[in-house]
Amino acid sequence: MVTPEMVTESATAAFEKLELDSGVTIAPVECAYETYGTLNAPRTNAILVLHAFSGDAHAAGEGGWWANMIGPGKAFDTDRYFVICSNVLGGCRGTSGPGSIHPETGCPWAMTFPPVTISDMVRLQKLLIDHLEIPRLLAVSGGSMGGMQALEWAVAYPDRVATAIPIATTARHSAQQIAFNEVGRQAIMADPDWNFGNYYNTGRPPARGLAVARMVGHITYMSDASMREKFGRRLRSPDQFEVESYLAYRGYKFVDRFDANSYIYITRAMDSFDLTQRGALPSLLERARTRFLVISFTSDWLYPAYQSQEIVSALRSRNGDVAYCNLEARYGHDSFLVEVDEQTEMVRGFLDSTFRDLERKDLERNGRGAPRA
Amino acid sequence: MVTPEMVTESATAAFEKLELDSGVTIAPVECAYETYGTLNAPRTNAILVLHAFSGDAHAAGEGGWWANMIGPGKAFDTDRYFVICSNVLGGCRGTSGPGSIHPETGCPWAMTFPPVTISDMVRLQKLLIDHLEIPRLLAVSGGSMGGMQALEWAVAYPDRVATAIPIATTARHSAQQIAFNEVGRQAIMADPDWNFGNYYNTGRPPARGLAVARMVGHITYMSDASMREKFGRRLRSPDQFEVESYLAYRGYKFVDRFDANSYIYITRAMDSFDLTQRGALPSLLERARTRFLVISFTSDWLYPAYQSQEIVSALRSRNGDVAYCNLEARYGHDSFLVEVDEQTEMVRGFLDSTFRDLERKDLERNGRGAPRA
Repeated sequence: MVTPEMVTESATAAFEKLELDSGVTIAPVECAYETYGTLNAPRTNAILVLHAFSGDAHAAGEGGWWANMIGPGKAFDTDRYFVICSNVLGGCRGTSGPGSIHPETGCPWAMTFPPVTISDMVRLQKLLIDHLEIPRLLAVSGGSMGGMQALEWAVAYPDRVATAIPIATTARHSAQQIAFNEVGRQAIMADPDWNFGNYYNTGRPPARGLAVARMVGHITYMSDASMREKFGRRLRSPDQFEVESYLAYRGYKFVDRFDANSYIYITRAMDSFDLTQRGALPSLLERARTRFLVISFTSDWLYPAYQSQEIVSALRSRNGDVAYCNLEARYGHDSFLVEVDEQTEMVRGFLDSTFRDLERKDLERNGRGAPRA
Repeated sequence: MVTPEMVTESATAAFEKLELDSGVTIAPVECAYETYGTLNAPRTNAILVLHAFSGDAHAAGEGGWWANMIGPGKAFDTDRYFVICSNVLGGCRGTSGPGSIHPETGCPWAMTFPPVTISDMVRLQKLLIDHLEIPRLLAVSGGSMGGMQALEWAVAYPDRVATAIPIATTARHSAQQIAFNEVGRQAIMADPDWNFGNYYNTGRPPARGLAVARMVGHITYMSDASMREKFGRRLRSPDQFEVESYLAYRGYKFVDRFDANSYIYITRAMDSFDLTQRGALPSLLERARTRFLVISFTSDWLYPAYQSQEIVSALRSRNGDVAYCNLEARYGHDSFLVEVDEQTEMVRGFLDSTFRDLERKDLERNGRGAPRA
């Protein structure tokens, strides 16, 4: 298999089965992933990067969704760390999801695919990390839904994660976040071509509904100010504003790479995610025993800073090891993807100090003498 | 015709013709309106109230969209003032719009109805005010799109308006506001039942598309905080959040009272409105010679305070007579409809002082002696 420059490995792992929160077991289950950089001999330099709602396993290299953050000398420095990214459960980019073939019927699962949760996604990632024989991840990190997975990792597998870097995220969706997702789902389901999810063999996916859903999403990812700068009231044609043309372009382009049923499954996973359902946030995060770097962005109104601060407060109330920064940024929720300069500084320093600490502790534990000065 | 309590008159005025900004003339043109209270003998106590996007002529009394602001002892005190409200041009509640019958074809105009602008709407209102033989309005006032019409009145007919009270509004839509409207239009046009606007005789209006459009709207009318308070993460059923159920209810209820083509026409009128296209805002508003009371709301993120402040700055830069308040409010853009206590204080005081001033000046002008102390 030819892999693009930067990508060390691009593969799909198959596992015997995965038990879901719903009680249903998927068997077998597949997980598409990519890796960048090299795993060191003691297997201590692995970082799992977690994608947001519409991302996939292709995080770095040309076209990678976090290409500006992953690579030689970048925030997640592939000269030093081994970076892994997999497509989430319920997705449509190689990992099992509603568009996958049901092993018994030979037809796509469509809406008979069981509901998935953020913890189901993480449980599948855990199988992958076991498969890659990584005893403990140096870091788990992602923005938006990727940040939810990072939090879930820290809570579910405290011994398997040294640090967590949740960015522009929340411990639970607010009513407003649920509402925007619901509008997207309703737009898809209102499209007759959706056909209750059975469109895989019709040649007519619910393109119009999915495009409208994506348009709503794009507005929420930008800030009022960044939209004003990018489009203002400029006209594309006498009858169309630039911003209208942009939304149409992004909406219909999305249809080519994303599955409408995955849209429904993954947004539902985000909406149902609620760490506080399993106990008070402070006691949950105390269990985590993980170093945290939490990042939010001033102009992000979809995942407002107060949601990150709720996580930070919970950690601090139990003397958790947490650094936090609300970065000055103009691009709204998209900032975690596009405003990477300060983010890079924060992440690089945090990873560096953690990695050195771990190396020192390992040396001490293995009785190979005192750490170097 | 039986009129509900509170309503003095409920009628439809027909005018010979209306010339539109597009160059097209509609002939004849109808305008549905209601009045509340009594016009005084010198005809100086008339207030024109202007509805927002989805409103209609029924502003006061049971079910009136501003019933908490218009009535005896209320902000627009019908014991003292004569209040008028008409349905806008392009609407679907009695005034000529895409659902009206084209006089030559005998069929609904549908999408052959000419494009309308905020100034077209105001030009029709001007015909109505002439018809009612009101030489000068004591006030024009409305929230959101109603505020745009108030601004347009002050600029287009400076001698016919003593005061303007634009609330939660803007001199021009931002890219974000255009974008949200465009998503609504796209949702409607994505519905096959829309059928390029020709659904009046099919018995199947584009209900799903219009409902999705309305859902998006409702999210933007509320604030993050008010949604959190009203719905939080409460479930309506094991599979549905309260907020999802609410949006579905509001979306489909809207279909019963609103026309999808009017949605398209009226949102386009809002998006195309740009007072600054006709000159710099300060010089435009200087022409207005009107007393202004401008109101915005702290939690209104759809029509943020900075847009009202742009109007206020323009007025102040030319020594315009302007009072401004950014009212502390929790309910987002909906605040102008629901948080009426402080709004009432502001409006009542402003109208009272203006009305007294005008009475005094009239007395002076008519040589009936000095004003009373």
